Amino acid sequence: MKPVFRVGETYAFPPDIPEKEAFRIWVELPQTTYVAVDDNNKINGTYYIKPNQPGQGAHVCNCGYLVSESARGQGIASEMCDHSQQKALALGFLAMQFNLVVSTNEGAVRLWKKLGFSVIGTLPKAFNHPLQGYVDALIMYKWLSV
Amino acid sequence: MKPVFRVGETYAFPPDIPEKEAFRIWVELPQTTYVAVDDNNKINGTYYIKPNQPGQGAHVCNCGYLVSESARGQGIASEMCDHSQQKALALGFLAMQFNLVVSTNEGAVRLWKKLGFSVIGTLPKAFNHPLQGYVDALIMYKWLSV
Repeated sequence: MKPVFRVGETYAFPPDIPEKEAFRIWVELPQTTYVAVDDNNKINGTYYIKPNQPGQGAHVCNCGYLVSESARGQGIASEMCDHSQQKALALGFLAMQFNLVVSTNEGAVRLWKKLGFSVIGTLPKAFNHPLQGYVDALIMYKWLSV
Repeated sequence: MKPVFRVGETYAFPPDIPEKEAFRIWVELPQTTYVAVDDNNKINGTYYIKPNQPGQGAHVCNCGYLVSESARGQGIASEMCDHSQQKALALGFLAMQFNLVVSTNEGAVRLWKKLGFSVIGTLPKAFNHPLQGYVDALIMYKWLSV
């Protein structure tokens, strides 16, 4: 997780976030956290799932996904997102929302669209990209329940 | 605040939220919380202001507003929202975002539009209304800095 957070181009976590705080956000606060392992039990990715809002909004979940640098391009994000949608339904969630998909993260935007997510809207300049400055962020959403 | 939370038609807080938890969410967690008082120092409303995201999203703030039942229709929400926009800029925020404006709360939607907020998008059935069931929720946004 550390390289992704330190680069700071895809998640709105402070690039210098301490390990303890990252652990709290990714593992302790969410409802569940999973890891993706290969045949040798090497961890290639991780995701969390949690309610996006409390109370009357708690039927919509939020997930965050991370793929380790050495495991990119193998479809792991896609597998994790499929897995998370199944788990979300099993946990009783009805929909899934991504609150801040950085517009410059084109691979992610393309993948979420492919996996059935809709762009609900675009937040102008809502993400302060370390290289490109203020860039737009997308809100993406998928109703999971049929 | 209690009557608004108990009815549960406008905020995604559990309608049975305990006072201590409501205090934590409204007063302790946000960056700042204000009250609107009349000439006799009677509290007619309150709002909080906080970063909507950490790190690279922390230049966008989020506010929540509440007007006491006995003080409705006097323009207090409008005054608080104007005040919050000034305070947001003074605190260094550049934009303001509302994450879950319940679509059935037509007065609020109309007011935020009047005060310069745009509807970024509509989240289908993202709010479980106690009387109307799953209803849409709007994401509203305003760039404050000129």
